[in-house]
Amino acid sequence: MKVDGAPYRTIWLADDGWAVEIIDQTKLPHEFVTLRLEGLDDACAAIRDMRVRGAPLIGAATAYGMALAVHMDPSDNAIAKARDALYATRPTAVNLSWALDEMDTLLAPLLPSERKEAAYNRAAQICDEDVGICSAIGDNGKPLIETAWTAKGKPSLEDGGVNVLTHCNAGWLAAVDWGTALAPIYKAHDAGIPVHVWVDETRPRNQGASLTSWELGKHGVPHTVIVDNVGGHLMQHGLVDLCITGTDRTTAAGDVCNKIGTYLKALAAHDNGVPFYVGLPGPTIDWTVDDGIKDIPIERRDETEVTEIIGKAKDGSIVPVQLTSDGVNAANYAFDVTPARLVTGLITERGVAKPSTAALAAMYPDKA
Amino acid sequence: MKVDGAPYRTIWLADDGWAVEIIDQTKLPHEFVTLRLEGLDDACAAIRDMRVRGAPLIGAATAYGMALAVHMDPSDNAIAKARDALYATRPTAVNLSWALDEMDTLLAPLLPSERKEAAYNRAAQICDEDVGICSAIGDNGKPLIETAWTAKGKPSLEDGGVNVLTHCNAGWLAAVDWGTALAPIYKAHDAGIPVHVWVDETRPRNQGASLTSWELGKHGVPHTVIVDNVGGHLMQHGLVDLCITGTDRTTAAGDVCNKIGTYLKALAAHDNGVPFYVGLPGPTIDWTVDDGIKDIPIERRDETEVTEIIGKAKDGSIVPVQLTSDGVNAANYAFDVTPARLVTGLITERGVAKPSTAALAAMYPDKA
Repeated sequence: MKVDGAPYRTIWLADDGWAVEIIDQTKLPHEFVTLRLEGLDDACAAIRDMRVRGAPLIGAATAYGMALAVHMDPSDNAIAKARDALYATRPTAVNLSWALDEMDTLLAPLLPSERKEAAYNRAAQICDEDVGICSAIGDNGKPLIETAWTAKGKPSLEDGGVNVLTHCNAGWLAAVDWGTALAPIYKAHDAGIPVHVWVDETRPRNQGASLTSWELGKHGVPHTVIVDNVGGHLMQHGLVDLCITGTDRTTAAGDVCNKIGTYLKALAAHDNGVPFYVGLPGPTIDWTVDDGIKDIPIERRDETEVTEIIGKAKDGSIVPVQLTSDGVNAANYAFDVTPARLVTGLITERGVAKPSTAALAAMYPDKA
Repeated sequence: MKVDGAPYRTIWLADDGWAVEIIDQTKLPHEFVTLRLEGLDDACAAIRDMRVRGAPLIGAATAYGMALAVHMDPSDNAIAKARDALYATRPTAVNLSWALDEMDTLLAPLLPSERKEAAYNRAAQICDEDVGICSAIGDNGKPLIETAWTAKGKPSLEDGGVNVLTHCNAGWLAAVDWGTALAPIYKAHDAGIPVHVWVDETRPRNQGASLTSWELGKHGVPHTVIVDNVGGHLMQHGLVDLCITGTDRTTAAGDVCNKIGTYLKALAAHDNGVPFYVGLPGPTIDWTVDDGIKDIPIERRDETEVTEIIGKAKDGSIVPVQLTSDGVNAANYAFDVTPARLVTGLITERGVAKPSTAALAAMYPDKA
């Protein structure tokens, strides 16, 4: 998507054809800084320090990290060491393991002299595949926004436009381009549909206020940041036409495990007759799990994410401040599960599926 | 309630019998500071700068502010000036106008020489009346907590105790003592029931993280701070036995207008079969309004409450930090309306009423 008019992805090959460049997402939304990765260590640091984040982007950065390692030394030994180093950066990231396996399978049978070109090609392909999937999610979701707008009589932005509420960041910053939840919004905006986005702040890590708001703003999509408490009130007053969120894990039955608080917005949507959609790449559906509430363990993260928050001080420095009394008890649940009954549809690269075992199996007969 | 073992109210007469002391709530939760008010100007500044806040406490501070004014000068002219000065501090606060009218009605017919004693007596009475009402709310709500605990087999705190979720601050800091939503919790705790409280952070002003958590902690009530997104997840997993919130305005039909986000928790409670109670003084019911969603206008406050947050920096200073990009659009809705159908019961000083026109009219035949 665009940043002040110039097209960007979250990761790309440098003009010299071997280094890799990324957007340093830890500096957002206060500074737009790109970083040049010149070797395995740079790639590992970028993933570990969350300068790149989001499942697809972690996969892409892992693949390019391996390409950078092979660029320096294409031996079996160097590849094994690179694999260990990359794996250690974020061992629980599924896309990281997946990308390592992809690169291993590709590189192991090749002669060392053939490996560099193959590694860079596969890394580029992994990026392009993700862009293709996200673009298709956008194409499939765009008509949902257009239909909601048409049903209102196609009001201009000044007259209310069409309003989408989203939670957390499932935009292009979490992927390579387009994003998942935000792809339909970008496609609608680019097609001239006057879409306005309500952006949930998304405590405790504030990915909405810092990342979603930044990327929508830089692409020129009108939006308003709200605290996580507001969405229900907006829906009661007809100010939300549809919700679109992403998902970290989707069950075979259509339960959606996403950033904590998604369930509350789905309840409000259901209570007010507002459609609630979820954008996702089909390959991320977990076909081994049916009942998300019962079977998906919810990660608890560090309490300091609740008791402290990072922001820009008056002197321009980026600093943490403590919000609670010294030594207070806090609990930090990272995700919740929205049961399929509250989800209107799953927007995938293959189309929009009802959140049910039958509908998903019919859309993915090769997987289910 | 207690602060580190010593009993406190939020406002009290100093030992010298004429000055008034308060807790400076703008310093919480980071510092516990009491302030001595020695005249009308001090009282006006305390109300205007929100060192005292919460409807009942504003009323009490107004009454004591008038007593301080009369202490200096009991003339008609001085009283009229004091009235104007106090009114200007927070002109939209209903309890402020009410307290001014009370004091006016009392003082106008008296000789100047009789006014000082009368003013101090009435201010003390206003405080005691509020404490009596809140204590009765506590007595009426405590059995709800005890019943939930008994139904679970009376587990100890280590085995889960009884878990109450609350939103915002409707505790003793918002009143003179006890509070509304928190009064039943204090009564249960003081009676030895092992109650644990989930404290919603309550963005954007964080009254839960800063005030509710502080006052529960100082009285020794076990609690855990969570971000506003978490409650639904906890209820899905049986970790909340009941919810109790306060209310800023309650309609004759039992709709509850309270801090933004209350509606989302009520939806989650309803979806998971968790009882949702609201504590309130009966006199705050607005008998002129039935449909809260349609008829209660929702205050929009300054956007900087969303885009900035105040906390304690590493050097101990209390500073604001900016959370969003420069110039971002934000919207700050202060309250939402929870329809009566989602409310299990209204805990008042007269008992627990069903949230319906008939039940409320039956409980308040003198008002409805």
